[in-house]
Parts: sequence; C-alpha cells; structure tokens
Amino acid sequence: MRPTGKLHLGNYMGALHNWVNLQNDYECYFFVADLHALTTDYADPSNILPNTREVMLDYLAAGLDPAKSVLFVQSQVKQHFELPLYLGMITPVGWLERVPSYKDMQENLAEKDLSMYGFLGYPVLMASDILLYQPKYVPVGQDQQAHVELTREVARRFNNFYKLNGEEVLPEPDVLLTPSPKLPGTDGRKMSKSYGNTILLSDPEPEVRKKLKTMVTDPARVRRTDPGDPDKCPVGDLHKVFSSHDTLEKVYAGCRTAGIGCIECKGWAADALVQILNPIQERRAKYSDADVDDVLKDGAARAEARAEQTMAEVRAAMKLA
Amino acid sequence: MRPTGKLHLGNYMGALHNWVNLQNDYECYFFVADLHALTTDYADPSNILPNTREVMLDYLAAGLDPAKSVLFVQSQVKQHFELPLYLGMITPVGWLERVPSYKDMQENLAEKDLSMYGFLGYPVLMASDILLYQPKYVPVGQDQQAHVELTREVARRFNNFYKLNGEEVLPEPDVLLTPSPKLPGTDGRKMSKSYGNTILLSDPEPEVRKKLKTMVTDPARVRRTDPGDPDKCPVGDLHKVFSSHDTLEKVYAGCRTAGIGCIECKGWAADALVQILNPIQERRAKYSDADVDDVLKDGAARAEARAEQTMAEVRAAMKLA
Repeated sequence: MRPTGKLHLGNYMGALHNWVNLQNDYECYFFVADLHALTTDYADPSNILPNTREVMLDYLAAGLDPAKSVLFVQSQVKQHFELPLYLGMITPVGWLERVPSYKDMQENLAEKDLSMYGFLGYPVLMASDILLYQPKYVPVGQDQQAHVELTREVARRFNNFYKLNGEEVLPEPDVLLTPSPKLPGTDGRKMSKSYGNTILLSDPEPEVRKKLKTMVTDPARVRRTDPGDPDKCPVGDLHKVFSSHDTLEKVYAGCRTAGIGCIECKGWAADALVQILNPIQERRAKYSDADVDDVLKDGAARAEARAEQTMAEVRAAMKLA
Repeated sequence: MRPTGKLHLGNYMGALHNWVNLQNDYECYFFVADLHALTTDYADPSNILPNTREVMLDYLAAGLDPAKSVLFVQSQVKQHFELPLYLGMITPVGWLERVPSYKDMQENLAEKDLSMYGFLGYPVLMASDILLYQPKYVPVGQDQQAHVELTREVARRFNNFYKLNGEEVLPEPDVLLTPSPKLPGTDGRKMSKSYGNTILLSDPEPEVRKKLKTMVTDPARVRRTDPGDPDKCPVGDLHKVFSSHDTLEKVYAGCRTAGIGCIECKGWAADALVQILNPIQERRAKYSDADVDDVLKDGAARAEARAEQTMAEVRAAMKLA
C-alpha cells in the first residue's frame, strides 16, 4: 500500500484482512510503497516518511506477523531501484500510455501535474516490486487485476529477450483473487481517504460511535415511524459485512417494520466494528517505536536477501555480470 | 563513454585526451556508462560487459590515472540507480520528448525499436550521472552542450522543490568546453564506429600504416603529377591535428606542387599517429586483468562514497530519510 495516511476499514477489508489470512498458507512479502507515493506527491513528499511508519504500524496492528511474513519499506531495499531501471529499458512507452489508470488518475488528480516521467513509469515500478520476489501469486481484489496483467506482459517480454542457461528468470505471477466487499463510508459513498468519509483502524471506540451516529441511512426513511430498507442503507451494508446472522435478522425485521430506529441500528453496527477494531488497537498499543524500527530493519534485510537472488539471475540473464 | 567497443582516435581527440589533462587541475570522476548502453542495446546486451572492460583499459592506456582520478563503471555504484528514480519523478515527459537527440537517434537507428521507456529517460540517467557528484564543471565538446543544459534544468527544478536547511543540494554544473577537433576517418567522413572508418587506440603500427594507405585523399588529385590541396584532403586534416609545424609545411608545399606523392604524405601522417599511439599501447600492455579488476573495485568504492554523500543530502531534502 502507498503511505498516504493511517489505514481505514476499507483498506482492511479490501486487502489487509486477506493478507493476514494468507500468511498462514504462503511465504509472503508485504511492503509499504513509499517510492510509489512520490509519483503523485513529488511536489510535497514531507508526509511520506511519517505515513510510512503509520502504515507499518497498521500492518502490525492488523495482524501481519514479522515471524511469518517479510514486512518492509520499498525504498529500504536497494534492488527496488535497480530492477525498474532494467525493466524500463524493454517496456514500450505505448504500453504505459495505455494503462487505464494513467489517464484516469491524471483526470482525477487534476490539481496535481502528473505529466512526469516517474508517473508515466509507475507500472514499471509496480512490475519490479512484484517480479523482484519471483512470486507464484499476487493477492489482489478484482479492480487491481489489470495491473498484474501488465506485470505479466513485462515478465513475458523480459523472458523473451533474456534467458539464463535456457531458463526463464521472471515467472509470470498469477492473480490470487481476494474478497474485497463494497464498504460504504459515513457519507454512503465508497470508503476512501479522498472523500473524508473513513473509519480508521486506529479510531478509538467513542470516535467510531460518533462517526456512526452521523452516518447517512436509507434516505426514504425520513421519520422514526417510517419503515426502511436495509438494502438501500449504507448502515445496512456495514451490517452485512460485519454483523452476526442474528443481528442481521434483527436489523432486517426491525427496520422494515419501523420496529427499531436508526440510532439503535447504528449502535449495533458500531458494536460490530468495535469488536473488529479492539483487538487491532490492542495489538497496535503493544508496539513501541523501537519495536517498529526492529521490524523494519529485519524485514529490509530479509527482503534484500531474497531480492538479491533474483537480481543475480536478472544480471546474469542480461549478461551484465 | 558508452561501452560500444574499443575506443578510436576520434574518441581520444574529442574527449579522452582532454580528460587526461584535466586530471592535473581538477578532482575528476570518469566512468563507463554501461547502463546507457542498455537504452539502445537492450535487445542484445551481450557485448556490454566485455566492451566495458575494453573501454576502461583504453581509459588507462590513454593516461587516465587511478591515483589522480576516480575511474569506475556506472552500474557498480548503486546510487546510479537511485537518483534517476527520484529525478524522474520531477522531470516532465515533454522535456524528454523535446531533447533533439531523442527523435534523431530514433531515426538514425531505425533498425532498432527505440520506443522504450528507458530510452525516453536517458537524459534523466545522464542528469543523475552528473549531479550525483555535485560537480562544478562537466567537460564536453560543443555538440554535447545541450545535454548539460537539460541537466541544469533538472537540477534547477529539483532545487525549487526541495531544499536542505534552506540550501540547494544539486548545484547547476557549468560546461567546461573542451576542444574537439574534426577528425576524419579513413573514408573522409567523420571518424565513427558506425561508419567502420576508425583507427583504434589499440591498432598496432602495421595496422595503422595499412589503414592510412587506403585512406581517401583530395579527389581532385588523380595522378601523381597533379598538384593537390591539403585543405580538401582528409589526410591533410590528420596532419593539421597531429603533425609538427615542420611536417605540415612540407605537406603543404609538397602537395600543392606535386613535389610529394600521397603515399609519402600518408607515411608522414602514419608516423605522427604512431607517435601518439605507441605510448598509449605501451601503457595498455602494462595493465593485467587483475590490475583492471583492482582499479574497478577501488574506483567503485571511491565513487560510491562520494555519491552517497550526495544521496544523503538528496534524501534529506526530499524528507525521505
């Protein structure tokens, strides 16, 4: 993830939560993409360093475990500078111009000048970040599959140009499709930092309850006595993701008959969120600054050792060493 | 210089010869640009590594002195991967598309597909190569001044975005204009590897004399008895660069009166070349493979130490560390 700020429930359900489960079945590498943040925030990168630390703390709080997975910061592993330079040599500019998010982001972030060489090349960075660990899978949600497809094309092109003793060096990784439920923010739109509608993993319980109280509901239910429809209500969507079967039944029955009010219903949603967030926040509190330093240092060393294996093969295949 | 093969007299007179003199007056950094070679030779980079060694041997043979200057190979200093990634983040794609040599080279090397991201970015690489050593001057011939101008613009843009305690980190280097006399190849066109008309620094004396014998002369002088014009003769141009004043007078007088033949005149030119090349070749013979290894290792360490000073300032100014 890019270090754009503290992580929210949308980040958690869309990615982090899946990653925590994956680490029991796979050898995993998770990093904070500080170099990627530069592609859009080059004009003022002053938040990247503090945010990088916050995201790593959120990773640890969510349950990513340095004893199971390799957790690191992209810029602390020097091979993340070397491989993109090589892959850029073989990547046609046209491929990059045609990445859908290239024009999209330029339009969405119209207040930033994204006509930079680095921004054009961020899919090359991303391909390097992935291929550097010669992975079998990349765990992504549905909306991220196109990025993995470009990575596969870059790998294929590399393997066509360069081989090591007749063997391919950069296997094309497969997508490991992970669930990414639609999570509404407090204003009913998709939860997203840029909308200012998030519930943070680090929000204390009173803050969570306060945010829930202001959350929009089924607009057709104007008065307490009007019946509502949980399927047209953002709070209903939260219940579907986070609440137990029993609670969900109470919500459907009570809302549709006007047997419960929105305040009560929001209280139950807050209960469910707090149940998720409490253990995350307890874990967060256990990590001192020195602990995070240790995790980062150890993770960088392990990532570098693995990345260097790949780079040795890459350089040999390219006959540069 | 790019490692495209053994160096020739054109490379020597246009650059290397000047560098040898500069090392007595300046703290100099000279490198072999193996990463640059990838921008055009990515499809078959197998010659880059052996050529890199040959060029370094030519550097040493020509008189670049590891006791005076830092001699190294670009890819062996990891900061040469890091800085271009940062500078690319702030370099507008439009600047790169407008570099005159961008379209020129794509047309001149039409047999190669140069529509790659890496080729588009080679001015960013070049700017990094220069700025990494925070130099006061870049010694270039007249035709290379535009490249230094782009480097200055990139530095200026960096300094506008990022400062370290209010100070600029990447001073704009000045051009140190060095002589680059027009040197004809054996076919009368500019001496260039791509024309196959070169005299190599490593050509033994018999080879030099043989090449001179086939060299084109004033086309108006058809018969031995025809008078010629040294100012319209490629061999005359060689005399002007390499021969003594006395020889030059004999050439002008003899040629214009048909007092000497072209064979004799070419012999004198060969004498002058051999006088330049002999000490170069004697020096070349003194360097064993192990010596070159030592020079490269020591040079990389010294270049890296200097480059890391710059990078520490760059990262701090960008607030990445």
